[in-house]
Parts: sequence; structure tokens; C-alpha cells
Amino acid sequence: MYRACQPLERVFPVNTFGNNFRCTTFGESHGKALGVVIDGCPAGVPLTESDIQPLLDRRRPGQSDLASQRNEEDRVEILSGIFEGKTTGTPIALIIRNKEMKTEDYLPLKDVFRPGHADYTYLVKYGIRDFRGGGRSSGRETISRVAAGAVGLKVLGYIGVSISGRVIEVHGKTLPAEMEAEIRTARDAGNSVGGIVEILAKGTPPGIGDPVSGKLDAAIAHAMMGIGSVKGVEIGEGFRAAALSGSENNDEMTPEGFLTNHAGGILGGISTGADIIVRIAVKPTPSILREQQTVTVTGMPVTISVQGRHDPCIAPRIVPVAEAMIALVLVDGLLEQLKYSGFQDILKNNPA
Amino acid sequence: MYRACQPLERVFPVNTFGNNFRCTTFGESHGKALGVVIDGCPAGVPLTESDIQPLLDRRRPGQSDLASQRNEEDRVEILSGIFEGKTTGTPIALIIRNKEMKTEDYLPLKDVFRPGHADYTYLVKYGIRDFRGGGRSSGRETISRVAAGAVGLKVLGYIGVSISGRVIEVHGKTLPAEMEAEIRTARDAGNSVGGIVEILAKGTPPGIGDPVSGKLDAAIAHAMMGIGSVKGVEIGEGFRAAALSGSENNDEMTPEGFLTNHAGGILGGISTGADIIVRIAVKPTPSILREQQTVTVTGMPVTISVQGRHDPCIAPRIVPVAEAMIALVLVDGLLEQLKYSGFQDILKNNPA
Amino acid sequence: MYRACQPLERVFPVNTFGNNFRCTTFGESHGKALGVVIDGCPAGVPLTESDIQPLLDRRRPGQSDLASQRNEEDRVEILSGIFEGKTTGTPIALIIRNKEMKTEDYLPLKDVFRPGHADYTYLVKYGIRDFRGGGRSSGRETISRVAAGAVGLKVLGYIGVSISGRVIEVHGKTLPAEMEAEIRTARDAGNSVGGIVEILAKGTPPGIGDPVSGKLDAAIAHAMMGIGSVKGVEIGEGFRAAALSGSENNDEMTPEGFLTNHAGGILGGISTGADIIVRIAVKPTPSILREQQTVTVTGMPVTISVQGRHDPCIAPRIVPVAEAMIALVLVDGLLEQLKYSGFQDILKNNPA
Amino acid sequence: MYRACQPLERVFPVNTFGNNFRCTTFGESHGKALGVVIDGCPAGVPLTESDIQPLLDRRRPGQSDLASQRNEEDRVEILSGIFEGKTTGTPIALIIRNKEMKTEDYLPLKDVFRPGHADYTYLVKYGIRDFRGGGRSSGRETISRVAAGAVGLKVLGYIGVSISGRVIEVHGKTLPAEMEAEIRTARDAGNSVGGIVEILAKGTPPGIGDPVSGKLDAAIAHAMMGIGSVKGVEIGEGFRAAALSGSENNDEMTPEGFLTNHAGGILGGISTGADIIVRIAVKPTPSILREQQTVTVTGMPVTISVQGRHDPCIAPRIVPVAEAMIALVLVDGLLEQLKYSGFQDILKNNPA
Repeated sequence: MYRACQPLERVFPVNTFGNNFRCTTFGESHGKALGVVIDGCPAGVPLTESDIQPLLDRRRPGQSDLASQRNEEDRVEILSGIFEGKTTGTPIALIIRNKEMKTEDYLPLKDVFRPGHADYTYLVKYGIRDFRGGGRSSGRETISRVAAGAVGLKVLGYIGVSISGRVIEVHGKTLPAEMEAEIRTARDAGNSVGGIVEILAKGTPPGIGDPVSGKLDAAIAHAMMGIGSVKGVEIGEGFRAAALSGSENNDEMTPEGFLTNHAGGILGGISTGADIIVRIAVKPTPSILREQQTVTVTGMPVTISVQGRHDPCIAPRIVPVAEAMIALVLVDGLLEQLKYSGFQDILKNNPA
Repeated sequence: MYRACQPLERVFPVNTFGNNFRCTTFGESHGKALGVVIDGCPAGVPLTESDIQPLLDRRRPGQSDLASQRNEEDRVEILSGIFEGKTTGTPIALIIRNKEMKTEDYLPLKDVFRPGHADYTYLVKYGIRDFRGGGRSSGRETISRVAAGAVGLKVLGYIGVSISGRVIEVHGKTLPAEMEAEIRTARDAGNSVGGIVEILAKGTPPGIGDPVSGKLDAAIAHAMMGIGSVKGVEIGEGFRAAALSGSENNDEMTPEGFLTNHAGGILGGISTGADIIVRIAVKPTPSILREQQTVTVTGMPVTISVQGRHDPCIAPRIVPVAEAMIALVLVDGLLEQLKYSGFQDILKNNPA
Repeated sequence: MYRACQPLERVFPVNTFGNNFRCTTFGESHGKALGVVIDGCPAGVPLTESDIQPLLDRRRPGQSDLASQRNEEDRVEILSGIFEGKTTGTPIALIIRNKEMKTEDYLPLKDVFRPGHADYTYLVKYGIRDFRGGGRSSGRETISRVAAGAVGLKVLGYIGVSISGRVIEVHGKTLPAEMEAEIRTARDAGNSVGGIVEILAKGTPPGIGDPVSGKLDAAIAHAMMGIGSVKGVEIGEGFRAAALSGSENNDEMTPEGFLTNHAGGILGGISTGADIIVRIAVKPTPSILREQQTVTVTGMPVTISVQGRHDPCIAPRIVPVAEAMIALVLVDGLLEQLKYSGFQDILKNNPA
Repeated sequence: MYRACQPLERVFPVNTFGNNFRCTTFGESHGKALGVVIDGCPAGVPLTESDIQPLLDRRRPGQSDLASQRNEEDRVEILSGIFEGKTTGTPIALIIRNKEMKTEDYLPLKDVFRPGHADYTYLVKYGIRDFRGGGRSSGRETISRVAAGAVGLKVLGYIGVSISGRVIEVHGKTLPAEMEAEIRTARDAGNSVGGIVEILAKGTPPGIGDPVSGKLDAAIAHAMMGIGSVKGVEIGEGFRAAALSGSENNDEMTPEGFLTNHAGGILGGISTGADIIVRIAVKPTPSILREQQTVTVTGMPVTISVQGRHDPCIAPRIVPVAEAMIALVLVDGLLEQLKYSGFQDILKNNPA
């Protein structure tokens, strides 16, 4: 096997998000099914497939002429954890069967490492690689996250949290028409472009997040950087804060609340109650028609032109995924926060 | 108690980093001691206090006229886990006793929320706050991380990994003389400035990191954003990738290795073997002499001028902390990677 | 709702076994499906449904006239984690669809707490209860554990570990014919009887298990007591050791190995290489035809006679479940043990 | 190095108890100090050294002429997590410095495996062994558990839980005078005896414990079997249940509560509100004066007579340790239970 540098050994993946609202995802792009088991969802929450399906539909490609034209149906089925229409507190298993599997599309790529993809690193790591559509490293894996996020959003709805994201920049352009033009130009040139997505979470109560190793901003950074193609994360002023002075960047306080929100809703790793503002940098889709140099698994030099249906800019399709991941972080923090609430009540009722 | 917005409930912190090389930190700025327990360090590694002390000394303030003048001695003591000069595989407890405790400096701040600090969020969260120097939210907490990182670096040394960081930007300036001038100007004006730190990890073998929820870049983002004052993290091209096209951003491969390193050493959440390149945005120190509006814990409006010894730019002192955190992420990933290595050998020796 | 004593609050379940070979189970007795996601299984292990099905068949009821006559088919389907017949290191999802669902059998029990069952505690805990066959607290939940254990056994096979269990006592009797007679007598009397199961693990290498909080015997005790109906666990001499002297109970050593195995293969929480010997006490099946006093969910006194197909002695059917759980403990410990093996090699090759 | 059987590889320990009230212990018998870091203790609990010291004193040897005469002072010091006499929700570090270190006592044992001890398994596992008093495998390690348990008991006190243990059997005898006689006889003969300890937890609210992998009885079994020298654990009727019929063993319910408590306070892994009853089998102290066969680390046959101050029956000294461990299990379950309590309130206030 080809190695640009000698690896130590192989290692295996960890596929669970969250400590309290624990989501374990599974499934490959061209396997039988994808899915997620949610362990720790509170009992008593009304939940049916119709709470989840709309978010999967929104994530689905083929919704504009600018996105990948793959016709996936992606019907979710709830296998467990629901009784008489409500969650029971037991694990909720969700599966989405794969319908359309054109393995033959990927046969030409069987022995070649696509530049910008995880092909090389997966093979180095596991010694075995499901080459069909990237297998587990496929963007299709995010379907499990969006399904779990839909359940998280349902829970968050009870405390009034809402989350919304949008593309704010494409290939350096920020006006909608210009962004669209950049994508069209890239597509027509057999190329791709990057972009920036911004996510806003409104209504998060103050006090969510753990100091030191469980900071809310650290958890968000982990969740965002854990989405394929994301290369940067910032909160509030983010990288702009590096060019500010303290008197400009501090959010002064008044009896009515914070005067500004340079912090993006988080101080010392704990939510302030203000809007949580997150921006992520999305790299250009690595699958491009343009010819590129690469090597085969045995290290022979070849050129490659990646055929098939690929989004010329992946940023728009990352929006629902990023929203879902922020939802998972917040619902996990919420449950952690609720964890000890009862004890404060006990303390109040039992003065030492 | 004053609340800019009604919190839900209180919650408590999580203070452990890592799954394999697990570091649990403790201690407050003005308590008796700070420290860390490292669980999972391999047996047989030579280790004495002299492996750790130089890194603590480097982190210590008072080393230039531009840094805080606090005279801390910070002597580390190893309490356990060592026998005849080597690690035994059992927990390594490290403590650093606090020497200089000027609690009276902080009495004027007892009932006031300092803008840009965690004062408000801690009180909302716990209902109790150690106001002396920020307590657990103090930058002094990072002493435990640097001590743990020193042990991590010792382990990483055996596989040839080296980590080095530096300040690459201060208040928008990138030339050393200009950066220094910015810090002096800010200090003289009773203000502060932000900056950008870049960390390079050389020699990381390919194959480190877990797909999906344990991606190496996600773990790095978590570690970096978990350092106080950090508001942004990027890997490789980072936010610049958003303005590139796929043909510019992909790293083409040749039999000799990658032609470029736009990815910053990580593809699909797994190390490629190339240098790992990380940049973090550090906000301006929130403690400034300049008068600012704020409120007391009961919600009365006051103005505040934060006295005391504070770094006008915290970026230089974050360098050793960021290096230590990267070391903890890499040694944790290394042990995870080594985890199954033996099984691959077993498989090889026992064909099905 | 009826409460014998005021509960504090509700809480939710945790459904994952293992730190390295992590098995998250889901599904209820009368829901759509049961299953498990295995995260952390090494790559490269040949695996098909036919490796798992025989163990599920063995667990299945209706195999003797002494066991419950329920006709379950229990076909396992692998949804993910396999490529070209081998594990890829990614999560392996297994599901078993429920076929036969006689919900109406359970309607009479909808509002009544069955003595000896989890009916009362589940309702107190969650405020909602899937009364159909015990829902998640049903013995049918163990199907997921047996499926996961089959994969664990496959991995353990490569290092030569074999696990076998048997019933050694029923209602105080130890001869096969007497044990069978006890079960028949109990069944004919509309009653049930308890028993003792012994599990032997042969071929476990020395060095598996973690001192202090991860002791191998502690992990086994957790796994065994976590099987429904188990009320006691012992290793080696177990409770008999309490009546021995040190000179009787110590296992003396010779150059050829241990002279005896009173310890049951574990010393200081770590395997010795000798056979691991575990015994578990199984309580009599709580579902009996005999009339018993109980209360309804609103606290009204009623008498109950539990109809339906129930094993008069559950011990024989616990055998494959206990074997599977021991397998999961051992494979988890094996992977933990392999974790740092590479580092010892690195140390050897890099003397300080 | 001598090996009775070829081990696979070395592995390292895990030293944390609990998911919510997380106790990480450290320290060796003859190292500098022992201690524990408690992460997750709720804020607002009054706590000083005087809450902990009495339990350490009770655990201390040398309190009767039947126990080991080692004169340990064992003063606990709180290093962090307390402000103005109350817990702050941040990690509580407790240390106990070792005073009396007679390493020379252990020099004769440096190269010999003591029968019934962890000497052999530790060396096989780590390749390095702190032979002084057993190092980390020493009974002295339990001092950290008792210290942590004292904090746990303080928290449990607010909900009215009390825990008490006692020796109920020694070497087959159950009358106090007979038990004492057995210990004296064993001591005079240079031998040792085993015993049984029973722990009772009163006042535990119903609903604590998690179904499937987090069952309360499973957690108790783990905690009990994780104490050195414990070889068996049973709950309620325990092994006696194996000889009962269902009609004898079921606890019938009435409007006033359970008629009996054969279950020992746990059904389906969840507390019923009745007393939790646990019994553990303690093996005879392995250190005896009587000559025994063993081998050196290089595999040479030798005989050994273990000199020094050793308890002829360790059961009495295990009582406070077992109480502490039960306390840690219950406080962990309590916090898990309180975790979601707030969400049930939110649901109540926000009907779907």
C-alpha cells in the first residue's frame, strides 16, 4: 500500500456524539442503511417520523439546479423508544435505508486516492476501505446527524431555543446573486468553490456549558470542525477579535443586559443568554472534473477527473447539518444543566 | 442575583481531557494548589519534575516587561505514578502550590461583574463564585494543562513528534517590531489588544484521528477553543479556503507525497503525515484600566476600571498552553491508534 | 400514580456496554425491532449473518418442552460496517425485527404491577411505561446482547478464548435428572424455580483487566448482575472463600504455573491466565400462575395470576446471554490491553 | 520475567469511578501521597476536612488488637473546590500524605510473587512493579475511596440516605464471640480467615438506576467486586434465591407498600424505595506467616513466609470501604436521576 510517510498503526472510529443526549451513528454511503441510536432522550416527548422527515428532505440534494442531482428518497423509520406516540426514555433507533446504489460509478476510483478526500487516510488507518462513494467518510453520513438533530430540536423547542443557518459568503462574495454566479461559474468550469456559513441560536438560557474541558464554545467548535469540509470555526467576533482592543471587544453590561454581543453569546465557556453566533469556513468540494495529479494505492502516479454528481459548492447543503449539530450540542448541555437542578432545590429545602 | 435573562438551572463542570491519556485538572487561582491527575500514561517512561518544570517556567508571567509582573514560583511536585524514576502505568498526580495570594486585590471586584470575564456566567451557573482572581476561570488554571502537556510531549518524543507555536499577528500587525509596539501602545493607554497564534506539529504519523465524532481536527478545535480568550480556530487554509476553488485547495499527490499542504495535515479527520497547522484567534485581554459600564451582582449600574497586573496582550502567554493542548490531543490519538495495533498483528498471524 | 414511597425524580437509561468494543442496544419486546450498534470492532474480521444467527437460535425459546413455547424467528440483519465480507472498523449495526406481537395478551396487565417485575420501578422512573411484554425491561432485550456477543466471540476466537456456560443447580438440586424434575414440578404447580449458572472462560491471556476501577472481576460482576433475574455473582471460590483460611485459599505458584485456581483466574483485578470461573444466582421467574397480591397503578389492591408462555426456570435461557456478556467484557479488556502494546514496542526501540 | 502462560500485551489502568460524581483516585502505598479528585460534586454543599477525617480514622488500622498495628496518621487536606466553606461545583482535590514508609520491610519480597496477591499479574501487565507494600494494588489505596465516599455521604445526607455495614460471618461463624475467636485462632496460627460483610442503605428513593447497562444492582456489584479481596456479591436473597420458588421470592405489593423485600430494594435495575441489602464475600488475607510455595520473577521455585503487620481477617476493615463505595454508587445515580428532572417540569409546563 502506498504511504506518503510511514504510519504507526491503525486505529478505529468513535461514532458517538454527546454525554447526555448520546447519538451513535452508523452506515455507509452505499451500504444497506444509515441510522442513529439516540440514548438519553427524555421520556414524554411526542415524536413521530413526521418530526424528522422534513429536515431530511431539506438536507436532500437535487433541490436546485445548483446542487447534486442525486435522487435520494431518504425515508426515516423509527424502530424503538416510542410508545403511544411519545418517547419512553429508552433508546430511539432511527434508520434510513439506502435506495439508489450505483457502485459501478465508483469502480474506476477503486484503486486511486482522490485529492482532498479521505481515501488515503482511511486506507492508511484501517487497511481496508469501502471505496463506494467514500463509504463512511461520505457526506451522506450526515443524514444520521440531521435525523438526530431533528429530535434534539424537538426537545429544545420546549425551552424556546431556535436555530437557523445561512450561507453568508461564497468564493469571497457576499451578495446572493454574486454567490449564485460564483457557483455557476465554478460548475461550468468543472471546478468548485468554498464558502462561509453562519449559524444563529436564539433563546439559549444562560448557564449552559462547562468550564475548563466542557466549554460550550469548545463543544461547538468540536461539532462544527467535525463536519466534513469544515476548516475553520469562530464564535462572535472570532478572528476579527484579534485585531480589536479590549475596550472595543468587551461587552459592557447594564441593568437591561449586555450592550453588545462581541462574545457571540458565550463567556468563560458558558452561555450568557445572548444569541449564540457561529461561523464556519467550508472548503471547496474536492470532487472536481478538472484533471489532477494523484497516485494509486500502490503508489503509481496517475491523473484523475472525478465524474459523477457533485455539488460545485457544498456550503448550502452544510447548513442543515450545522444546525443539527448545534442542536445536539445545546440539548446535551441543557440536559447536563438540568442534571443538578433538583439538587439545588434539595439544598434550598434543607439548609445545613 | 442579577440576571440579564432568566437562566434555566445551574450545572457543574467537567474537568477531564482525553479518552486514553486522561487529564483531570483541579485548583483555583487563589486556592491552596492547582494540579492534574494523568490516568492512562504508558508504563516505562522516564519522568521527573525536571521534565515538567521548564515548561511551567516558560508559561510563567514576569518574563518580559510586556507581560504581567506577577511573581509566581510554580514548583511542580509529582505525588504518584513513578517508581525508580519511571512511570508505572498508574495515575500520575502533579500539584503546584499557590504561593502568592493577594485576595485583598480582588475585594473591590467581589460584587461586580467584570466585562468580558466569566464572572456573570459562573454566578448564574453555580450560584456561588470564587471571586479571587477568577477562581477556576482564571488563566492560572492553564498551569495544570501545561504540566500535563509536558508529560504528553515526553511520550510523543518517542515517536518523533515536535510541537512549536508563535504569535503571528497582534492587533492586525504581523512584523515583530510592530506587534511589540502595538502591545506597548495598548498598555500605555490602559487598554489591551488581541492577536493570532499559530501552532505547528511536525512528525505526526498518518492515521491518527477517528472519523465522524472523533475527528482529529475536531479534537484540536475543541482543545483550542477550550483555552480562555480563544474565539476562533482554523486548520491549514482555514477561513481562506472559503475563497478558494477546488483546484486551488486540493493537495495533489505524487509518489513522493503531497505536493502542497492546504489541508494542514488532516483529511477526513485523520492525519496525513504532513505538518499539522493550526491558527487560533485570541481576543484582547478583558481586564483593562479604561472605565467601562457594568453592573453589580444585584443589578445596579456601576463603572469599573480593572486594576492589577494584567498582560496587555495575552497571545504570547497562550503559546505554551496551546502547544500543551495540542500535545494532549496527539498523545490521546496516538494511544487510541496503538489500541488495536496488536489486533492487526493477531489477524495477520491467524488468517481466517 | 401509585407510589410505595415518594421518588425524587425521573431518570433515563444508559444502554451502552464497553469502553473499547462499545455496544449500544435498543428495542422493546413488542416494538418494531431490537438491535445493537457495535462501535470499535477492529477492521479486517470476516463477518456475515451466519456468524451471529446460530447464537440467536440457541437463545431462542421453544426448544424444549420445559421452555417458553413462544415461536420467535429472530433473523438478524447486518446493516453496516461490513465491506466485501469483512469488518471495516466502522460501526456494525445489527437489527432483528419483531414478528409476533400479541399485544392483546398484555392488555389485562396494562394497569397492574406484576410482582417481581420492573413494572413499578419503570413507571416511577419514567412516568411512562410500555406494558407490552415488559417493553425494554423484557428478557427479549437480551437478543441484542447475544448478537453483539457473537461478534465479540468471533474476535476472541483469534486469540484462542472459548466460553461455555451451564446450569449447575436448580431449586437446590444439582443432578441433571433432579433439576429437570424440579422444573416440571414447578411448571405443573403454576409456579417457578431459581437456579445457578456457571460460566467458564478458557484461554484468556494474563494481564487483562485494569486495577482499581476497571478490575476484570468488577467488570464481570457488572455484566452478570446486569442480566435480568440475576441476584448474585461470584468468582472462583466466591462465597465459599469466606469460610476458608488463607493457607487454603491462596493459589501457590510453581515454575509450571499455579497449583490451584481458587482465585478463578483473576488476581488484583487482572487475569492470571488460568480459567476464569464465574457463577451467578438466577431468581425464580416472577411471572407465575399462582395468585398473588399486588396493586394497580392507582394503588388499588388486586390479585394477579400471570397468564402466557413463561419459562418455569429461566436459568437455562440465561446461559447464552451470560456467555455473550462475558465475551463482551473480555473483548473490551483485550482491546484495552492491546491499546498500549505498540507503545511498549516504541519504548523498546527507543531507549531513553 | 516468569510467566505461567504467555500474556498478550500490557495494558494500563482506569482509575475513575462514576459518571456524574466522578472520583479519580491516585497514589501508592509507599509513594508520597494518596488522594482523589472529585469532579461533579454539586455547588453549595458545606464541606471541611472535619467531614472527611472521622471516616478515614475509622478506616485506619491499629484500632483493635485484632487489626494490623500499623500506625498511620492519614490526615486529609482539601486542595481545591471549596470557597468560604462550601463546594463551588469545581473539582475537589483531596490528598493524604504518606508518613511511615518502611520500604526495607518489602525488600525481601522485591523479586518474589506473594501467593494470593497481585504481584504476578501487575508485573505481567505493566512490566514494572512498585513492590513496596503492593504499590497501587495495596489495600491502602482504599483511603482515597473512603475520602471520596465521605463527600458522597454528605451529599446523600440531604435526601435522607444512610448507609451502614457490618461483618456478619467470619470463617463460617456468625456469633460475635465466635467470629472474634476465629480471628484470634487464625492469627495465633500465622494464618488468616475470610468473612462476609453486609451493607444496608436506607432511605434511597425509588427510581434510581438505569435499565440495561446502568442497572443499580450492576453498579453495586461492580463497586463491591472492585474492592480488593472481594470474591462474591449478592443483593437481597442473592444466592438463596436460586433455591426458592417464584411464589416465595416475589415481593407482593399492597397499598401500604411491598409486603417483603426479597429483592433487596432493586427491581429491573431500579431502586424500589425499600432498603438496599448487599452482601459481599471477603477472602482470607493472602499475607500469612505460614510457609507457601511460590516463584521468583525469573521463575525459580522458593518458599515464602510473609512477615509484617497484616490483619488476620480483612473483613472488618472492608466495612467502611464498602460503605463508601455504595455511597459513591448512590450519589452518582442520584445526580443521574436529578439530571432530567427539570425537563419533566418543562414538559408539564409546555403541553405539546
